Parts: sequence; structure tokens; C-alpha cells
Amino acid sequence: MHFSPILLAGLSHLVVSASGSCLHNTPLMPRQTTPNGVAVAQFGYTGLQGPAHWHKLNPNNTKACLLPQSPDSIAYTTQCATGDFQSPIDVIPAKLTYLQGAAGPQLNYPPIKSATFENLGSTVEVLVTSGSLVYNSTTYSLKQFHFHTPSEHRINGEAFPLEMHLVHASPTNAIAVIGQVFELSAHSSTALLDEVFAHLAAITEPGSVTRTGRFNFNKVMENVAKNGVYTYGGSLTTPPCSEGVTWFVAKEPLPIDVDSYEKMKHVVKFNQRFTQGDLGAPNVLSPQEVV
Amino acid sequence: MHFSPILLAGLSHLVVSASGSCLHNTPLMPRQTTPNGVAVAQFGYTGLQGPAHWHKLNPNNTKACLLPQSPDSIAYTTQCATGDFQSPIDVIPAKLTYLQGAAGPQLNYPPIKSATFENLGSTVEVLVTSGSLVYNSTTYSLKQFHFHTPSEHRINGEAFPLEMHLVHASPTNAIAVIGQVFELSAHSSTALLDEVFAHLAAITEPGSVTRTGRFNFNKVMENVAKNGVYTYGGSLTTPPCSEGVTWFVAKEPLPIDVDSYEKMKHVVKFNQRFTQGDLGAPNVLSPQEVV
Repeated sequence: MHFSPILLAGLSHLVVSASGSCLHNTPLMPRQTTPNGVAVAQFGYTGLQGPAHWHKLNPNNTKACLLPQSPDSIAYTTQCATGDFQSPIDVIPAKLTYLQGAAGPQLNYPPIKSATFENLGSTVEVLVTSGSLVYNSTTYSLKQFHFHTPSEHRINGEAFPLEMHLVHASPTNAIAVIGQVFELSAHSSTALLDEVFAHLAAITEPGSVTRTGRFNFNKVMENVAKNGVYTYGGSLTTPPCSEGVTWFVAKEPLPIDVDSYEKMKHVVKFNQRFTQGDLGAPNVLSPQEVV
Repeated sequence: MHFSPILLAGLSHLVVSASGSCLHNTPLMPRQTTPNGVAVAQFGYTGLQGPAHWHKLNPNNTKACLLPQSPDSIAYTTQCATGDFQSPIDVIPAKLTYLQGAAGPQLNYPPIKSATFENLGSTVEVLVTSGSLVYNSTTYSLKQFHFHTPSEHRINGEAFPLEMHLVHASPTNAIAVIGQVFELSAHSSTALLDEVFAHLAAITEPGSVTRTGRFNFNKVMENVAKNGVYTYGGSLTTPPCSEGVTWFVAKEPLPIDVDSYEKMKHVVKFNQRFTQGDLGAPNVLSPQEVV
């Protein structure tokens, strides 16, 4: 999952600057195009580029991504190994706050006619310019959504074949993310995935970009409102693993069919950070001993 | 994925002693029943019980599991954090030896009429008393096979929803494992899985055991012989992560349908050790810096 820019130089696709971070296309990390190259993710999911080494990444790769809550300009990615509110977690319902209906995040995502769809090397991501999430009197704007396979969050120990992260930023650059897992189904799927993944064939190479057709978020909005979410304060699941992220993990999976799952997995391959420790407990990569 | 024996005390199922290790039911770690309790896996896949902490496990949990190649009686599980030939890996075909037909492992697995099927907490496992693998003039006996979800090995970066490990031991206790990944299919499945997983409902609780009906390994033997395997010297993917394991990872996935996948995942939930580093390179948990 670590791609050399050299390998991509000859691609005929339109190429974009893309860090692959959860913060991509937020006010903290504006999207940029470059005239002659790509900047796909400098982190990966294997060996020395993998999650056990993210805290050792070259700071220049991730400096622009720091959240306001983490103003330490030296320790760029150290939270990947020292943070004690890191994501993803195993969602144990008894330990988290459950929100439903009017108590939960209020989503207002209008239908999309067409959107930019990019392969960042670390994920595939759809850029959006409309949509909002309101929670605790704060309005967050939807900036992008991207995918992880297998799921990053687990629910009662169980993982899922796919998770979608809908990333929002407030006017003060606070970050809120909806995590929606998907379960394989032989009988049904979620139109949003089918419609977006129909365009995956155009962005199989990291650094490539295309346009989607029409899609809407109706099933996601309905699922969050009706079945509720578990909320907790966590982190980005990619470098620099900044904390202060408000997570809303949907309680119920939505369906995905085999065809959509295969299409996505053949492109994204694997991009799951390993499960982090209990909220507030020492980071799993810190040197504490097991009692 | 870490279960308290207390929670299991009231189960009506027949309970067994079960370490959950890859070595379970090999000559190095004979299966045992106990009169009044269970000994399910003392390791897990989350936080302080997870793969980043396996090297800190209580030695009493894993002392019996050491391979002859790792005679250090003190550093029981240190190879989980220091071994440099650790499994699972991302199988990059150009880096490994490919074996096909007569050059590969010769499998002779007779059909099974009925076998013991156990939930070890860390996986579900079928115990077998027949079957052999011959490679390089050594005959290994098939002892058990068990499952990981998602797959532990990746192939060209891509993970799969399921992997089966067929664990063999030689007369001198050398270990050889066939790793067979499965891909979701809307149209077909593998009879072996359907037949075995039909009995999962009887062992949903760690420490429980049942009996399977008839099944056979025909599709696995055919796939290994016809499509070949990638081989490398690696390790157990569970504590104590002992090295000296001969791995044969089947090149081609076999199909699994949605129903069998769901059944298995609802019981096993998640038991994937994160991808290890390049063979011969320092362990990903060792303190070396990224160049």
C-alpha cells in the first residue's frame, strides 16, 4: 500500500496532490493540484510504513495535518504511539454514550449531482461541497467521505468488511466523523455504494481522479436518525493521529453486496489501522507492562 | 476477544482445555480436557491483550507452546516483538518461491466422517486424526485446521474475508501450515466451509465443543496442486510467535458465500494479527527508525 511517485509518473489520468490523511480536503489541509506530479499517501499499512511505525514518519509528510487541539509543532505524529484517546476502537456499547434521534447528530446531506472521486493511495475519497452535521449547537460542514476495508471500528468485538468515514469540520476546525460500517448481504445493497463504486474502474491507480454521477445519502441519514450512534472522543485513524475528534459510530450496519465489495477491495486492498486500546488507557505502543 | 473463565462457568456445553495457539493439538501441546473448567486463549486482538502486547504475556500461558527451534526457556513470547521472520506477511509473489504440482507440498487428506469442532476463544478449530503433507522428503501429519477473519496473509497487498490454516507436525515436531484464503462469492461456495460452519451454532461460546458431520478437503487439495503455493519460512501468527514454521500460502482464493461468511464472523468476530515486516528485516515492534 506504499506507492512510489515514480511508478505513477506515466499515468494518463488527471493527477492530484493528495495526502491520504483523514484531514484531506478540510480547512486544515486544503486540496491542491500540482502541474506535474502526485503526492499520494506517504504512510501505509505494512511493515515499516505501517501503523506500528506511523509515529516515526518524516514530519514533512504530515506537518500540515495537525489539529488545533495538538499545537505541538515538533511532535508531529507522536500521538500515533503516545495518544491515549486513539481510534479506531472496539465499540463496547456499555462503555460509550448512545444517541438516537433528536439527541444525536443532525445530518443534512443534500443529494449530489456529481463529485470528484480520488484514489489517495491510502483510500478512495469523494470530495463534497455541501452537507452539514449539527451537534451540541455546533455546525460542522461535510468535506469528504472515504473508505476502509476491513472496517476500522469493531462493534462488540466484531469487524466488518467495510467502513465509511464522513469527515466534517466546524468553522473553528473542530473535526467530527460519522463511522458507518457495512455488512455483506446476498439480498440487498446500499445505493450510495453501488453508485459511487461504479466509478472505481477509473481510479484504480493511486493519484488518479474521476467524477461520480448522481448519488444521495438517504440511507445513511435514515440509519443514523433511526438506529442511533455511539459517540466518543477519539483521533484520526491515519497519521498524524491527532486527537480531539468527535466520533459518531452508527449502531447498525448498512448492507453491501458482493459485487460492490469486490470492486472496492480490489482497489483499496487493505487500509485498517489495528484496534487501539481503551479510551484513556496508555497507548498500546507505549512501553507499559501488562498487569 | 478476551473472555473470563468466570463467564463460562455456567455453560452447559462440554468444555475443553484449549490454549487457542496455532500449536494446539500438535505433539508440542496435546489437547486436554479438564473436569471443571476451561482454559480458552489468554491472548486477544484488542488493546493490552492484542498483538502489540503479546510479547509481554504471562509466560505460564504459553510455555508449553515453544517450538524446538526456539529453546529459550525464559523469553517465551519475545519473538512476537523481536523475531525477524514473523507471520503473517503481505505475499508479494516476486519475493517468494512459487511451487506447483509435483514441486509443491503433496497433500493427502482423506474424507472425514465426523470430527471434534471447538471454540478456543481465539478461533474455531477442527481436530483431525488423519491426513498428511509431504514436502522435501518430510512427512507432516495434519493435526487441526482453524480460521482467521479477516485473512492474516495478504496477497499483493489485498486482504480477504477469511483464511484457513491447516496445521501439520512432523515426527520431529517441525511445523508446516497451509494458508488458504477465501473470497466472497455471490454464486458459489466451498463445500468444506458450508459443511463445517453448519455446526457453528453449537459452539458460539468460547470453551464449547461439538462434532461435525461428513466433510472432505477435495477443493483445497485440488487448488494447491493445480494453482500452486507461495512458500516461506515464518512463524506462528499467535503467541508465542515461534519461528521455524514452513508456510505454504495458496496462490488462488477459494469461494465463500455470504451465509457461511456471516455465520463464521458472528462467532469468531476478529482474529487477525497485523501484517508483519519483510522477511529478515527487523521486527516492526523493535525500536529501529525508518530510514
